[in-house]
Amino acid sequence: MPTVKLIEYDEASPEVRAIYDDIRVTRKTDYINNFWKALANHPPTLARVWRDLKEVMAPGRLDPLTKEMIAIAVSATTGCAYCINSHTAAAKKLGMDNEMLGELMAVVAMFNTTNKLAEGYQVEPDVFPPLE
Amino acid sequence: MPTVKLIEYDEASPEVRAIYDDIRVTRKTDYINNFWKALANHPPTLARVWRDLKEVMAPGRLDPLTKEMIAIAVSATTGCAYCINSHTAAAKKLGMDNEMLGELMAVVAMFNTTNKLAEGYQVEPDVFPPLE
Amino acid sequence: MPTVKLIEYDEASPEVRAIYDDIRVTRKTDYINNFWKALANHPPTLARVWRDLKEVMAPGRLDPLTKEMIAIAVSATTGCAYCINSHTAAAKKLGMDNEMLGELMAVVAMFNTTNKLAEGYQVEPDVFPPLE
Amino acid sequence: MPTVKLIEYDEASPEVRAIYDDIRVTRKTDYINNFWKALANHPPTLARVWRDLKEVMAPGRLDPLTKEMIAIAVSATTGCAYCINSHTAAAKKLGMDNEMLGELMAVVAMFNTTNKLAEGYQVEPDVFPPLE
Amino acid sequence: MPTVKLIEYDEASPEVRAIYDDIRVTRKTDYINNFWKALANHPPTLARVWRDLKEVMAPGRLDPLTKEMIAIAVSATTGCAYCINSHTAAAKKLGMDNEMLGELMAVVAMFNTTNKLAEGYQVEPDVFPPLE
Amino acid sequence: MPTVKLIEYDEASPEVRAIYDDIRVTRKTDYINNFWKALANHPPTLARVWRDLKEVMAPGRLDPLTKEMIAIAVSATTGCAYCINSHTAAAKKLGMDNEMLGELMAVVAMFNTTNKLAEGYQVEPDVFPPLE
Repeated sequence: MPTVKLIEYDEASPEVRAIYDDIRVTRKTDYINNFWKALANHPPTLARVWRDLKEVMAPGRLDPLTKEMIAIAVSATTGCAYCINSHTAAAKKLGMDNEMLGELMAVVAMFNTTNKLAEGYQVEPDVFPPLE
Repeated sequence: MPTVKLIEYDEASPEVRAIYDDIRVTRKTDYINNFWKALANHPPTLARVWRDLKEVMAPGRLDPLTKEMIAIAVSATTGCAYCINSHTAAAKKLGMDNEMLGELMAVVAMFNTTNKLAEGYQVEPDVFPPLE
Repeated sequence: MPTVKLIEYDEASPEVRAIYDDIRVTRKTDYINNFWKALANHPPTLARVWRDLKEVMAPGRLDPLTKEMIAIAVSATTGCAYCINSHTAAAKKLGMDNEMLGELMAVVAMFNTTNKLAEGYQVEPDVFPPLE
Repeated sequence: MPTVKLIEYDEASPEVRAIYDDIRVTRKTDYINNFWKALANHPPTLARVWRDLKEVMAPGRLDPLTKEMIAIAVSATTGCAYCINSHTAAAKKLGMDNEMLGELMAVVAMFNTTNKLAEGYQVEPDVFPPLE
Repeated sequence: MPTVKLIEYDEASPEVRAIYDDIRVTRKTDYINNFWKALANHPPTLARVWRDLKEVMAPGRLDPLTKEMIAIAVSATTGCAYCINSHTAAAKKLGMDNEMLGELMAVVAMFNTTNKLAEGYQVEPDVFPPLE
Repeated sequence: MPTVKLIEYDEASPEVRAIYDDIRVTRKTDYINNFWKALANHPPTLARVWRDLKEVMAPGRLDPLTKEMIAIAVSATTGCAYCINSHTAAAKKLGMDNEMLGELMAVVAMFNTTNKLAEGYQVEPDVFPPLE
């Protein structure tokens, strides 16, 4: 159960409604995820996170589907149930099928394993030059 | 400092040498990462992890660069220094430049933030059908 | 579902009942949280954790509300649902309102992001003298 | 070793310099932390993180020292060495002494323990109403 | 709710059925855990994880109960509800009673605390020689 | 670099010296680990953690080597370098050899992988009765 009330559109302040409206227009759907309705309890956080998300998910060098799959990788690694659900649904909309998810999960599982082995043995980094 | 000795080729058993040879051929380099030299302390683990890695990183529905970037995302999220270094170097070899890494980091940072907000407020998952 | 039975007062051993009694007196409530009822399956752990908690939460240099908000920050970062719920309720009793929780969440989210960026780029610590 | 070059003021683009200037003015110091010099490899991320940080750390319902102590709590929980160092230094500047840090560490350690016990036994949340 | 359909025996491909059959024979039970039914969405991952698990859990230097208790320790530390449940049930079958689980939980809780204190103060490792 | 000074015996208060003395007698060594010298900055924490550790590591249903190996499993999973080093050294003293460490690491790596797969697919727990 959430620790705060979810703020519905009808009971939201004009400031929050404006953000909900922008979410709807940007995402081309009337649906407002529970995440935003929880953040609406603190409008400055709602405004900042939505603004950041729009910036980070805007077209760039990585395509939107890759970004959503990275979001799944992060969320599976931290174990955030809400996030795994919402990013899996979002990636599916962008074309991820069951086999791609399986391959993604295999990669995430593989590198969580090697991470623990590298830590567990305290292996020292190989020397590579920084990226330029 | 590693908690085990790194096993060099010359002191390795024939079983371990065969794996080192396969790593060299597969990766087209003579360099054996410290990670493998640490795992060589337990040959069944060395064999299993290398076999798994070859399977998981083989050509599939996700391209090799995407897989390496997911490896960076996982490693930045868990905070494994060894892993971040080696996967960043590997992704660079596959064509990741500084701007792509920046965009990747922005995505990783963004979703670690939203993960904590979703957890912190205990937001309940929106209802989506499972992937088929 | 818990992996152990919750031990109710009536079925508890005298040793466990004495701790439940102390929890009730200290917290000025008859309610015993599920957490303690689970720990009661291993009385030495119940005794140690309760004793430690009383010590750590006693009046000191940090006030009780700050301590509860730090507990929320820790629990949101590790993603422990039980803990987030109970510490949010406890902080609320001590005066935390919705806006303060929002500000706390914003701080937690912010530094989880910067943590991942610092790790992801493997930034080396700036040099500061130790605290004296 | 960082995976990117640290961008010094003299080699920075005008866009990055403007942010460095703002950091200097806001923080009343010429010193630019390594963190910002690493982020400068991706100017949009540098700009966004600095903007967010200023917003989140601005005077509000929680005082600046509490916010820095929460940053230490988050960073000790995730184990980010860079972050622990810089937030401990920042909190010290704001008046945290050794005893306060000790009390903070005790609280962080306590709740990481109870988090693992609550998870380990899969204790179900007590029922509390959401914050309003 | 899982993000994929659980694949039942009757609707499984021959490849997946062969693995389900091997799980049943190896574990001497008809019951197939939900975990395997989810992995069956990506047969190569199902095959790899099952093969690895059989190898890792085979008789060796550590006995099966110790291995299951380590699995509980890992799962309580990462907070994976599914895993805590299934490894606690498996350890119980192998003879773990309530008091042993309590002692295990106490150890897990203890070292999660000391981990955070060591990180929080950034204590430098004592110098020990590597294991040989 | 630690964020606090390490307190040496000669500069320690009588209260801290008494604990150092007890550590030396209990562990049958003059060596005081850096961990305790850091905790000595906050004597109540030093006293509590040492008292708890003695209780938790005392002879019980799990033998000391198993407890140290669980400590390694926890520390490899959280990635605490200090802790991995000290618990590996302690387990070695109690008889853990290189092959046992290899097997332990294999188990830790295996279950970190299955943890992420169970989370990544959001698999629902199989239904098991609680331990009694």
